[in-house]
Amino acid sequence: MQYQPTDDRRERTERAQKLLRERDADALILSKGIDQYYLSGFLTREQKRHLFLIVPAEGEPAYFAPDPYRRQLENQSWVPTMHIWEDSDDPIEKLREAVAEIGIADAETVLVNEEMWGMYVIDLVSVLDAEFSTSTDLMLSLRRRKSESEIDKMREAADITDTVSEEVRSLDVVGMTENELAAEIEYRVRKYGAGDRGSTQVASGPNGSHPPHAYSNRTIEDGDPVIIDFGCSVDGYLSDQSRVLVAGGDPPAGFVDAFETVREAQEAAIEMIEPGVVAADVDATARSIIEEAGYEGQFLHVTGHGLGLGIHEPPYLMSGSYMDGGNRLELEEGMVLTVEPAIYEPEEWGIRVEDIVLVTDDGSERLNGSDHGWEPL
Amino acid sequence: MQYQPTDDRRERTERAQKLLRERDADALILSKGIDQYYLSGFLTREQKRHLFLIVPAEGEPAYFAPDPYRRQLENQSWVPTMHIWEDSDDPIEKLREAVAEIGIADAETVLVNEEMWGMYVIDLVSVLDAEFSTSTDLMLSLRRRKSESEIDKMREAADITDTVSEEVRSLDVVGMTENELAAEIEYRVRKYGAGDRGSTQVASGPNGSHPPHAYSNRTIEDGDPVIIDFGCSVDGYLSDQSRVLVAGGDPPAGFVDAFETVREAQEAAIEMIEPGVVAADVDATARSIIEEAGYEGQFLHVTGHGLGLGIHEPPYLMSGSYMDGGNRLELEEGMVLTVEPAIYEPEEWGIRVEDIVLVTDDGSERLNGSDHGWEPL
Repeated sequence: MQYQPTDDRRERTERAQKLLRERDADALILSKGIDQYYLSGFLTREQKRHLFLIVPAEGEPAYFAPDPYRRQLENQSWVPTMHIWEDSDDPIEKLREAVAEIGIADAETVLVNEEMWGMYVIDLVSVLDAEFSTSTDLMLSLRRRKSESEIDKMREAADITDTVSEEVRSLDVVGMTENELAAEIEYRVRKYGAGDRGSTQVASGPNGSHPPHAYSNRTIEDGDPVIIDFGCSVDGYLSDQSRVLVAGGDPPAGFVDAFETVREAQEAAIEMIEPGVVAADVDATARSIIEEAGYEGQFLHVTGHGLGLGIHEPPYLMSGSYMDGGNRLELEEGMVLTVEPAIYEPEEWGIRVEDIVLVTDDGSERLNGSDHGWEPL
Repeated sequence: MQYQPTDDRRERTERAQKLLRERDADALILSKGIDQYYLSGFLTREQKRHLFLIVPAEGEPAYFAPDPYRRQLENQSWVPTMHIWEDSDDPIEKLREAVAEIGIADAETVLVNEEMWGMYVIDLVSVLDAEFSTSTDLMLSLRRRKSESEIDKMREAADITDTVSEEVRSLDVVGMTENELAAEIEYRVRKYGAGDRGSTQVASGPNGSHPPHAYSNRTIEDGDPVIIDFGCSVDGYLSDQSRVLVAGGDPPAGFVDAFETVREAQEAAIEMIEPGVVAADVDATARSIIEEAGYEGQFLHVTGHGLGLGIHEPPYLMSGSYMDGGNRLELEEGMVLTVEPAIYEPEEWGIRVEDIVLVTDDGSERLNGSDHGWEPL
């Protein structure tokens, strides 16, 4: 029986403790970031001082935090116990006392978040004579199915993305630089009250053939296909969408056929998504449509990825061509995925169309819905 | 004799090696980030795969990197030796081979950048039976004096900040939310081709009395003082500027006197900056002007901080009221500092005026120059 996702952060933390015990780990220690937010409710990006959520395998979790954070933690987190250190304290010494009081001074196995700054890992190693490893798998297994309220936030982020996407379609982008168009997009996202996700892509003409391209000072020319990939965040939850527009409306040779192939592959992939379907099979479906249409070797990445508090989460829609056997994980209700097949014409242009798909109890639901076409308005 | 700052990244790396030997450290290992960029020329923010610049105390530095980074490293970095790992490799095993070839397999003391992700520190600990500590002091001592080309980039970033600052002065901000004004600022920064630094502050009315306030959905009201603190980046080098505007132009009681005090404190602090002056004394000068004018306890932070690739670098302009004796460091030619005295009226408003100051051979030079006044246009 799969666990049900919950909005109750205490319950999430108790599940994390259960997973710790199943793995014979003694404690989970999280620095500031999305995993800490998921368990406690406290979210900040600043990382300049020792601040940890410490979750022992048994017993109550506690915060270790500098004094100026006391009020924010009281307001945002449910965790009642706080070991507060002052500017005049040696944080390492206070940390030693805190782990003793929490009962993990003799911990043998400790999990920390993979993005915890090295300076904190070094200090934890000096305080705890334990084996350290990362909490990535544990936390992602907790986070992979979304609760109703998480889905609501992702829906809201997707709606704002749709609105901005429709606005962008009506801009005259010929003569703009990629930088300028990216700035336009992020400005609009912010004006609608969402957070800027910080990973907008505007890839015009030949730049579109390199999937990791972000944006540049290249001026968009008449007839350039332009991949526009962006999203936003609402209370930490992300959206992610790609469209390709042809600047000026007159596409280059070969573009329209390739575009239709990408759309066909995307619709087929989304159509098959439901609980129990193997992630690799979704990728294989999209990939075979693209390859059979004559674009072998031109779809340069996986078909999609999980989305939530993180921009790239499991499950990856990845078949055997990328890793032995691909990802055999079965999709589950409450997972949120991107589906983003693509065709890249080397040094000419790229096409990628990406939507956000929620796995429902008997199929799937697209969370975003802006126009898919390549024609500007 | 102080070292002279250099643009030659090989020479910078050799200096880092000299500092390693002076500290009896065997190697410096840097993950992606600004310190790596400073030494090698390679800059990226993405951190999802094992990629290290490894600098032994003796001998040639080398990169350890995944195959897709090979071309970028060849183009951007001067470091000729690369230990490349492929998707089919176990990166830990390859790392073990690389440290042996580089000659640091028996290292006893290893420095890593403080922001290195914990997952990489854990892997390095498993490969090297050494004592780990952070490279922060070593790298900041290299970076604290700026070379001519570094100063040129900071000048360019300051110029763009000035341009945007003047534009913002002509906006009618009454009725805008702080979020909207922040989005306007960041959009303009990006349109002028600079990078968004990601730490804009728009703090209106009572929000201005909390120095760490970023921005919110609060609507700016007629008569609100609004602290506008932003900057941008050019090739990684940052600017940082604060102005306070009174929305609508009609300031609240007490504002104008406090504003003039802040400006007087700022001018006095900048006036005294030259090589050999003790950082704490600059803070003491600004602070005493503010306190003697009757605002004791209302200047809630240090007078300034170093600026460069990092937004907050040494030297901190910090006197004894914050730490025993304050910062006794003597200013040196080529340092770039912010000077940002402030007065915060609890739960009413805040005033902070911040400029960027280069320490020259016989005094100082302001790198930015936009209008300091509180009157909107």
